[in-house]
Amino acid sequence: MATTTPAHDVKDLALSKAGHKRILWADRDMPVLSTIRERFTKEQPLKGLRMSACLHVTAETANLARTLKAGGADLVLIASNPLSTQDDVAASLVQDFGISVYAIKGEDETTYYKHIAAALAHKPNVTMDDGADLVSAMIFLALNRMDDLHAEVRSWASSLSADERSGFCDKIVASMEETTTGVIRLRAMEKDGVLKLPVIAVNDAQTKHFFDNRYGTGQSTMDGVLRATDMLIAGKKIVVCGYGWCGKGVALRARGLGGHVIVTEVDPIRALEAAMDGFEVMPIASAAKVGDLFITVTGNIHVIRDEHFAAMKDGAMICNSGHFNVELQLDGLAKQAKTVTKDIHPFVDQYELPNGNRLYVLGEGRLINLAAAHGHPASVMDMSFAAQALATEWSLKNKGKLEHKVYQVPVAVDEYVAKLKLQTMGIAIDELTAEQTKYLNSWEQGT
Amino acid sequence: MATTTPAHDVKDLALSKAGHKRILWADRDMPVLSTIRERFTKEQPLKGLRMSACLHVTAETANLARTLKAGGADLVLIASNPLSTQDDVAASLVQDFGISVYAIKGEDETTYYKHIAAALAHKPNVTMDDGADLVSAMIFLALNRMDDLHAEVRSWASSLSADERSGFCDKIVASMEETTTGVIRLRAMEKDGVLKLPVIAVNDAQTKHFFDNRYGTGQSTMDGVLRATDMLIAGKKIVVCGYGWCGKGVALRARGLGGHVIVTEVDPIRALEAAMDGFEVMPIASAAKVGDLFITVTGNIHVIRDEHFAAMKDGAMICNSGHFNVELQLDGLAKQAKTVTKDIHPFVDQYELPNGNRLYVLGEGRLINLAAAHGHPASVMDMSFAAQALATEWSLKNKGKLEHKVYQVPVAVDEYVAKLKLQTMGIAIDELTAEQTKYLNSWEQGT
Amino acid sequence: MATTTPAHDVKDLALSKAGHKRILWADRDMPVLSTIRERFTKEQPLKGLRMSACLHVTAETANLARTLKAGGADLVLIASNPLSTQDDVAASLVQDFGISVYAIKGEDETTYYKHIAAALAHKPNVTMDDGADLVSAMIFLALNRMDDLHAEVRSWASSLSADERSGFCDKIVASMEETTTGVIRLRAMEKDGVLKLPVIAVNDAQTKHFFDNRYGTGQSTMDGVLRATDMLIAGKKIVVCGYGWCGKGVALRARGLGGHVIVTEVDPIRALEAAMDGFEVMPIASAAKVGDLFITVTGNIHVIRDEHFAAMKDGAMICNSGHFNVELQLDGLAKQAKTVTKDIHPFVDQYELPNGNRLYVLGEGRLINLAAAHGHPASVMDMSFAAQALATEWSLKNKGKLEHKVYQVPVAVDEYVAKLKLQTMGIAIDELTAEQTKYLNSWEQGT
Amino acid sequence: MATTTPAHDVKDLALSKAGHKRILWADRDMPVLSTIRERFTKEQPLKGLRMSACLHVTAETANLARTLKAGGADLVLIASNPLSTQDDVAASLVQDFGISVYAIKGEDETTYYKHIAAALAHKPNVTMDDGADLVSAMIFLALNRMDDLHAEVRSWASSLSADERSGFCDKIVASMEETTTGVIRLRAMEKDGVLKLPVIAVNDAQTKHFFDNRYGTGQSTMDGVLRATDMLIAGKKIVVCGYGWCGKGVALRARGLGGHVIVTEVDPIRALEAAMDGFEVMPIASAAKVGDLFITVTGNIHVIRDEHFAAMKDGAMICNSGHFNVELQLDGLAKQAKTVTKDIHPFVDQYELPNGNRLYVLGEGRLINLAAAHGHPASVMDMSFAAQALATEWSLKNKGKLEHKVYQVPVAVDEYVAKLKLQTMGIAIDELTAEQTKYLNSWEQGT
Repeated sequence: MATTTPAHDVKDLALSKAGHKRILWADRDMPVLSTIRERFTKEQPLKGLRMSACLHVTAETANLARTLKAGGADLVLIASNPLSTQDDVAASLVQDFGISVYAIKGEDETTYYKHIAAALAHKPNVTMDDGADLVSAMIFLALNRMDDLHAEVRSWASSLSADERSGFCDKIVASMEETTTGVIRLRAMEKDGVLKLPVIAVNDAQTKHFFDNRYGTGQSTMDGVLRATDMLIAGKKIVVCGYGWCGKGVALRARGLGGHVIVTEVDPIRALEAAMDGFEVMPIASAAKVGDLFITVTGNIHVIRDEHFAAMKDGAMICNSGHFNVELQLDGLAKQAKTVTKDIHPFVDQYELPNGNRLYVLGEGRLINLAAAHGHPASVMDMSFAAQALATEWSLKNKGKLEHKVYQVPVAVDEYVAKLKLQTMGIAIDELTAEQTKYLNSWEQGT
Repeated sequence: MATTTPAHDVKDLALSKAGHKRILWADRDMPVLSTIRERFTKEQPLKGLRMSACLHVTAETANLARTLKAGGADLVLIASNPLSTQDDVAASLVQDFGISVYAIKGEDETTYYKHIAAALAHKPNVTMDDGADLVSAMIFLALNRMDDLHAEVRSWASSLSADERSGFCDKIVASMEETTTGVIRLRAMEKDGVLKLPVIAVNDAQTKHFFDNRYGTGQSTMDGVLRATDMLIAGKKIVVCGYGWCGKGVALRARGLGGHVIVTEVDPIRALEAAMDGFEVMPIASAAKVGDLFITVTGNIHVIRDEHFAAMKDGAMICNSGHFNVELQLDGLAKQAKTVTKDIHPFVDQYELPNGNRLYVLGEGRLINLAAAHGHPASVMDMSFAAQALATEWSLKNKGKLEHKVYQVPVAVDEYVAKLKLQTMGIAIDELTAEQTKYLNSWEQGT
Repeated sequence: MATTTPAHDVKDLALSKAGHKRILWADRDMPVLSTIRERFTKEQPLKGLRMSACLHVTAETANLARTLKAGGADLVLIASNPLSTQDDVAASLVQDFGISVYAIKGEDETTYYKHIAAALAHKPNVTMDDGADLVSAMIFLALNRMDDLHAEVRSWASSLSADERSGFCDKIVASMEETTTGVIRLRAMEKDGVLKLPVIAVNDAQTKHFFDNRYGTGQSTMDGVLRATDMLIAGKKIVVCGYGWCGKGVALRARGLGGHVIVTEVDPIRALEAAMDGFEVMPIASAAKVGDLFITVTGNIHVIRDEHFAAMKDGAMICNSGHFNVELQLDGLAKQAKTVTKDIHPFVDQYELPNGNRLYVLGEGRLINLAAAHGHPASVMDMSFAAQALATEWSLKNKGKLEHKVYQVPVAVDEYVAKLKLQTMGIAIDELTAEQTKYLNSWEQGT
Repeated sequence: MATTTPAHDVKDLALSKAGHKRILWADRDMPVLSTIRERFTKEQPLKGLRMSACLHVTAETANLARTLKAGGADLVLIASNPLSTQDDVAASLVQDFGISVYAIKGEDETTYYKHIAAALAHKPNVTMDDGADLVSAMIFLALNRMDDLHAEVRSWASSLSADERSGFCDKIVASMEETTTGVIRLRAMEKDGVLKLPVIAVNDAQTKHFFDNRYGTGQSTMDGVLRATDMLIAGKKIVVCGYGWCGKGVALRARGLGGHVIVTEVDPIRALEAAMDGFEVMPIASAAKVGDLFITVTGNIHVIRDEHFAAMKDGAMICNSGHFNVELQLDGLAKQAKTVTKDIHPFVDQYELPNGNRLYVLGEGRLINLAAAHGHPASVMDMSFAAQALATEWSLKNKGKLEHKVYQVPVAVDEYVAKLKLQTMGIAIDELTAEQTKYLNSWEQGT
């Protein structure tokens, strides 16, 4: 139990008991992270570090936060998405673990950016992002593009001197990024020459995106759909938009539940891959007419647009599992709808079109796995967050040596995480023999 | 809205609004049943019929109840399982649809049997059962085996004359049975010569057990496990006990979610089938040592016993999706446990064994798909309940002609349901050509 | 090595060495049958029995033939299909095992029926059929419908007296039937009142049709397609006509190889099942337009007809894996084709249509798994043929007690085969406990 | 028909007719390559180029050879593997297409290297390799390491002056490499500083290794196993050694055929991936005891060693689908065997161990898909070989600009191939909208 309650903005501290249970329940399935936590407790590698993390505030994230704190960090945790916060977990982090949290499920835009301001006001040396919102704000700050900041952030920023603003990023040792979407944004910054700090693309770690994006998103997206709709997947036409790692995972699980999966893609190589994996591939305009359930996971904007909604069958279900809620053109849907019935079922809004067809949007178009279910299972977040903790430690060891670039997680971190994970799963694997190592390193082998 | 509130015993009528939403949500996915309801409304085939139905009181069942009432039946609906009732649905059935319901989620044994007594007191001409509890009680009554009746039922039964008791079954036109478990019991009664009424094995309809037992149980069981545990299935060893229709469905879905599935079976033919379907097959004593998650769907007693629990790994999860909660020897587990922590996570109890291992029992060993999720999806119940409604109608048409036997659902009912279902799914199929029909009926074809 | 060479009509006895190897190779994978053969050798249960078997003459069948002979039977084996004979196996059976064989790969119709006549001339007491051709001939004989017999059979039959003809079936203890198609024909005979002998539907044994029809046909059909075409299945649209046990197997394997599988069905229940198994379901007229590969397994005639061929894409491949070569309307295809190029690739004929599209028919529309590959794997035939051998033994034990009906294989045979098979696969299974047996037999269980 | 017969060393020119059929049959399924061939014929981009290609001489390769020749190249084609040549194809290439071919199925080591010498003697400007044997020889030559050359190559090389030898690689514009194994060797050369020419890692093209290595190797390996053994895969324990792209493909197809797949891996990340894909993962020492069929696809040496063979079950089947035949320690197996029976079944050798167990090695441990079946399907080679042709063209356009490095295939080539392939499959995909392109390139998006 924490002795003093840290600064916070959460729903209700009284929820902490349920949150505490939930955190410990997740912890059971995060043995890699807890091994790291034990070492961090002893070695204090983050001693004195000021950290701000903008992440989905879930039970799994709580265990990462505990680990960072155990390593000596002074942490502020804020929500990376207005709908994904587990209020009981937020309460327990404050109450039971003494961590400063700013996150309320369903918070409005103003509150969301007020929390971003709090994360910045913490004057962090290391940040963590889930979609690059925190870094974006820091870049606008450093570029002195005050107009591009949300009013709440601008208001706080105006208390800083021009020098403090332009030098804000200079104190950042590194920023960790958790998502494909964020890494794409950060690479665009690097290309535009505005990236003012070193970034570690934790998302690109193999132990992250091979597992979290595929198995995590795959299962949890379908889990979210089931909790929101109770629909039978078997026999349904499931349209998966996007066949990246997340899309592959979702398509696999939708098929695994008996669905007839249709994939839409803009990338010809991925489209071919989807076809050869046995999925039907077609443009969204064709898929719109036949789908029973639509799931977007592209990382792009307006993947399903006005004309596609208009073409859909009565009863079609539509949701998004990509990072931002821009994949569905919901404002256009609302405009063409005759009636909109919010919450016709928990997590479901009904849009009745002029042709009489009723479409159902799940979770308001936000990440369905976090809106209607509990996000990625602890067991995969174990690896992603182990990589986060170790990448943080690595960035400190390389303090001052890192350029304003997007870095990959060191291979050693990846291998350490994978080995430990296998071990905790009770799976033994072979080691290379001396003969094999030699063979692999020599080109002088032959037929 | 019903004008007068019928007799009932439900949690809280104030929950009716949420229940009403839920019933209509399910109804969207039950087009076959609603087509039948429309006809029943016009034709009134059940006019004047007294019915007692002992079923899981869910949104899907509500739509069956509405259909029976629409057809003219005077219906009493009671819970077939203490944990499966959706209290808001029960409330709405009473409040909005004027149906007499006796069902409270979490009701104790006394209440459960009090409700059975209420169903009998209704003096039904047709009954519906989900596990044969109602028929069992009627048989004990008719055999005058008062001691075998639960006290609550006995108490009501003692108000009857000996003649009324022994003749109780004579007024029954037929009883419908929904489950494999129930059909097994009823066949045992028939074999023992104590079946005092005609039974229609609705479970055995192809449009029922091919779909509901396989796709329904398969998906909803895994859904229940996910809601109770949030565990990642990929990479886990999932032990499915039993490879009947339900077991096949569960094994398929567990694999579809990335699990490594191990099957245990006592029937050599099914065991072979499981092996050839690519599953690992072994005795439970071996599976106990390696499983991460155990799911029983055998219809038998004590499938996982004391010695198996003792052999399990730390962290193993155990649940049941068979009809009765007897498949797990939970009293034995409790006896050997050092500590038992109820609700360590919603729907999860922790049993700590003397060796320090912690085992997790989900949903108290009751049907996990109903305890932690919402049971079978509406879309499959659509077919099962369409068969229920049509079998009821058929039994009335054959009133007096049926013997005290277990009957199959007429083939015509099965085909009608399948055709209508396909139609509502937008799937067209071929008809036999005249040449083909002739070919199939003739043996005089050749090489 | 046999001391005297029995009567025979095979391609070339000099092929026997390769055939002998092949028979022993298959025998390795038929441990159940060889266990039975050992017992038969000792017990001689078929001593003095005259048998005629009309089966695919493959290495697996050879091991059945060896088993029947070992049991004391005087056996004549003939081909049940003009394309399925393995000439080297036929040679070895004659040369090395002293069994009378009449079978030549590619034999013409005249030869085919000459062989049927030889099988009848053997005056069998027990027959085995694979499609009911032998029984059909015997029925025509017994009905004195000489005109319906093929000229070759009629010619032999005319040597018999009218009494011998009408009494031909009276000497038959029983006839075993191996295929779904044959059982359908035999049931039609029973219904028409012309079945003049007892039939055992070996096909309907669970250890037969659950395994042979599904796993055997599934794998070997795709194997035949690959050997004939070397085509990549991944990414192709594979149209499977028929979703019975064989169709289920083929659809499963086609999907397992990465195909996008489309199912056509006339039975609404099976069509629904296919849809819920995640396959696309549509009428053949629609499927014809999109399929890359068509496989018929319906047991019916003219499933793919003139208008369907006309609608197909350039390059479409078409084959059959149903028992008779009537499923494809090949005469109609030939008629509409501009050019027909036989053997454009081994086992492939090209039909060029007026619209310029080229269609490819594999294996002349005969069972593709036998025409282009080696039929069912030995491991499944092990069970089917074990059932054949044991059903033959059982019929002798019940000599004179059997009526002119289609009988099921006794459950005990099925269980014996399954148990022995599991054992040889190294798979142990549980036995019911006393408590469980009691539970299953009692209806007095409860909640 | 070619007017003069080019220099060659093939089995028998009389086989050309069958080879010609086979080449055209494959060509039907290689529309991308044939589109390129049409353009090459017009544009002559390879005019005057001397090329030596060391590839599997199959029907698909023949179509690549035709394309290179159509583009103006003066080509010598030799076998990259002693067992993979299709003699009829080799004959047809010489006879019908006027291409110089040196390749004979089953050629001994001396002949193999004589053919390598012929390829070098052609004094190529561009080479193509399938395993880097040709480049290796050129490197030994350039390093003047005459002792490391095979006697046959050394004999030819001694006719060159020292300057000609050391400058041999200087005339090479680039060398294309087709395999993972080859690329590993070439990278080792680059690291060792001995790579004396530019290399294009065609293997690493996404349209190559995503498809050829996975879908091509996956299907054709299982096809090879079936042709060699006729074994049923369903219910068998299939051990796949290696979970790279090839291993993933093989594991997927083995499961798709109903096998219970066990994966062995040395890389912890891939091992985790295999586990999460639902496969059982264990060290080879454990897998050796339970496997029914073993398939190596690791690219490493002695993956299955003496002690593993000794531990196997009676009847185990063993094969390799990795590039070189070193993955199985076959000399060790031969040494410990009591008896070795060659060709106990076509493509199968039996090794009887001292303990009486019989092990079966398929295709002498060489690539089973080429030894017993026809290698990758034309449809995937279409993409790999399109990439080969286009990479060759690209290297000429960049003549003189390339360093002595391993280069990736340009992204434009990959995208061109993928788009054309989709088109020929009749699959349309979406294009990015202007709004989406802008969105993807901008980091200034937000929640």
